Amino acid sequence: MKAARLYGSQDLRIEKVQEPTVSSGQVKVKVEWGGICGSDLHAYSHGQSPEPHPISKQSPPITLGHEFSGTIVEVSDDVKSHKVGERVAIEPLIYCGECYACKRGYYNQCSMVGFVGLNQDGGFAEYVVVDQNMVHELPENVSFEEGALVEPTAVSFYAVRESDLKPGDSVAIFGAGPIGLLTLLSVKAAGATKIIVVDISEERLEKAKELGATTVISGLREDIVQQILELTNGGVSIAYECAGVQPTMTNAVASVKQGGQVMAIAVFGNPVAIDMGQLLYKGANVTSRLAYRHVFPEVIDMISTGRLDVKGVITKKINLEDIVENGFEALINDKKQAKILVRPTK
Amino acid sequence: MKAARLYGSQDLRIEKVQEPTVSSGQVKVKVEWGGICGSDLHAYSHGQSPEPHPISKQSPPITLGHEFSGTIVEVSDDVKSHKVGERVAIEPLIYCGECYACKRGYYNQCSMVGFVGLNQDGGFAEYVVVDQNMVHELPENVSFEEGALVEPTAVSFYAVRESDLKPGDSVAIFGAGPIGLLTLLSVKAAGATKIIVVDISEERLEKAKELGATTVISGLREDIVQQILELTNGGVSIAYECAGVQPTMTNAVASVKQGGQVMAIAVFGNPVAIDMGQLLYKGANVTSRLAYRHVFPEVIDMISTGRLDVKGVITKKINLEDIVENGFEALINDKKQAKILVRPTK
Ligand SMILES: [Zn+2]
Ligand SMILES: [Zn+2]
Ligand SMILES: [Zn+2]
Ligand SMILES: [Zn+2]
Repeated sequence: MKAARLYGSQDLRIEKVQEPTVSSGQVKVKVEWGGICGSDLHAYSHGQSPEPHPISKQSPPITLGHEFSGTIVEVSDDVKSHKVGERVAIEPLIYCGECYACKRGYYNQCSMVGFVGLNQDGGFAEYVVVDQNMVHELPENVSFEEGALVEPTAVSFYAVRESDLKPGDSVAIFGAGPIGLLTLLSVKAAGATKIIVVDISEERLEKAKELGATTVISGLREDIVQQILELTNGGVSIAYECAGVQPTMTNAVASVKQGGQVMAIAVFGNPVAIDMGQLLYKGANVTSRLAYRHVFPEVIDMISTGRLDVKGVITKKINLEDIVENGFEALINDKKQAKILVRPTK
Repeated sequence: MKAARLYGSQDLRIEKVQEPTVSSGQVKVKVEWGGICGSDLHAYSHGQSPEPHPISKQSPPITLGHEFSGTIVEVSDDVKSHKVGERVAIEPLIYCGECYACKRGYYNQCSMVGFVGLNQDGGFAEYVVVDQNMVHELPENVSFEEGALVEPTAVSFYAVRESDLKPGDSVAIFGAGPIGLLTLLSVKAAGATKIIVVDISEERLEKAKELGATTVISGLREDIVQQILELTNGGVSIAYECAGVQPTMTNAVASVKQGGQVMAIAVFGNPVAIDMGQLLYKGANVTSRLAYRHVFPEVIDMISTGRLDVKGVITKKINLEDIVENGFEALINDKKQAKILVRPTK
């Protein structure tokens, strides 16, 4: 079968590899659609650790793709909860099951946490094999395209659920990439009223408006915080940090009201400076969440019942053969792109 | 009457001033004991803003002292809730009563918040006049010395109440000055089991042990975090930051476990760098609280019922005449000192 395997920095190759085979407790999925994520881009730009992952034992080259949907084509004999022909979305976390976090069900915080598609062969391939408890059935009215969006939606939706957001609250979202946009959809579904989105790209802000932002503010302006404070009569309840850099964090802290919260969803490359005086005076807090846990069924329900219309974040659909130029390079060079979906089989 | 008035940096003068008189809603208190606080030292070392405070309208020189107890000697005609002869502790916040925070009862977060004893004449004097709703009666079994400790205890006790602490939790306290020590007493009263205290002064750590720290660690060691992680099998639930500098914040963030919290009680002079990657991976949060609100009665109850034995933080008792040399200078130069109490009348 064909697979897009990452050998190193900017070295992603479409290769012919052997189809994977199921072991105990596993299912084999024929991939329908797979989304390209910021962490795929990061791996593509910077390469990956040469060390084998402690759970998957795999080291590069690894088949990328952790946001994908498909159809079960084979199940191991001992698998009873899923069957051949089932349409599914895959929850791509890999975890040890035995550490402090895993014992408490916090598998996203496993001391060895990894991802199918980053640390073990993933969904930019015709077939993939995964553990039965990490596949989630899609109802008939959820398309495979939407199924491929369940994973990134889960990131945003989990962070919103874990935040202090209450219906009727005002929020600010810093960064209008795919995670920012899915956060926008999630807070809208959760009852946020004023939804202010900040980004340096006008094209992304256009998209945010289209998806329901009540106000968009250019990240190039000097008076971002002042505008937010005026629009909200003193600050938002929650600022979602979906950009991961110093200026956006500084603005996020300054934009929340008394008792407010900064929820960081982005991954920060470096420590950030935080003005503790503002947290002190406002009694505000800063927190962050990694990935998700125990929310794929809820995300699928939200999509199925029309509460989350995630299709709007898809800006392009391509074939696996074109993944480098029309996928990775397009995302790096074209800010109009939000989510690009890849189809491994023509 | 005599009062200790701050004219500017290192210029604290004992002067004869007129006794204050009560206006509508006010009571006049004969001060029994007043404690010297870190913020008094800060004002003494750096001076104060020359601007008049928007509520008190007072500008320097101002009589210091915001931690004090006394006896009511006069009440305005319209005061019904307090009477002459009553033994009281004073809650020294001044606030507007009309801003966003005040309307919600968050008077410690008033946009104009100030302190009796920093922004309006305070308790290092024979008499002081305060609003009736800011005095709290002391039961017979709470001494005036303990009464003077209600205010700093309220700072720590409020932060502990606002933190995510649960009985049985392990905690770390960074900084063993008066606020750190009162935090130690507060977490003990709240059911914390392992209580780890970190400070660079061996003398302060001695005091912490005396007051109930289960482990003390020198802040000069390289392996502070490693020790805490080992002692607690992966980290404390809450790290209380009572030092307010970069190294202690860095260690606090690194010392909390999955889902843990850093509660900053100290005032930070500068923004601090925070490793968001740790908050992300641990799902931890950083927050802070300023002063207290609505907890003086609870603190007085805790002292009265023996749950908080605060007397142990008192290291010295002096007369008002000696406040500069035996009070302020002693605190600056002698790390053995925790809380020094001042008696305005011989
Ligand atoms: Zn991703
Ligand atoms: Zn684990
Ligand atoms: Zn104080
Ligand atoms: Zn106010």
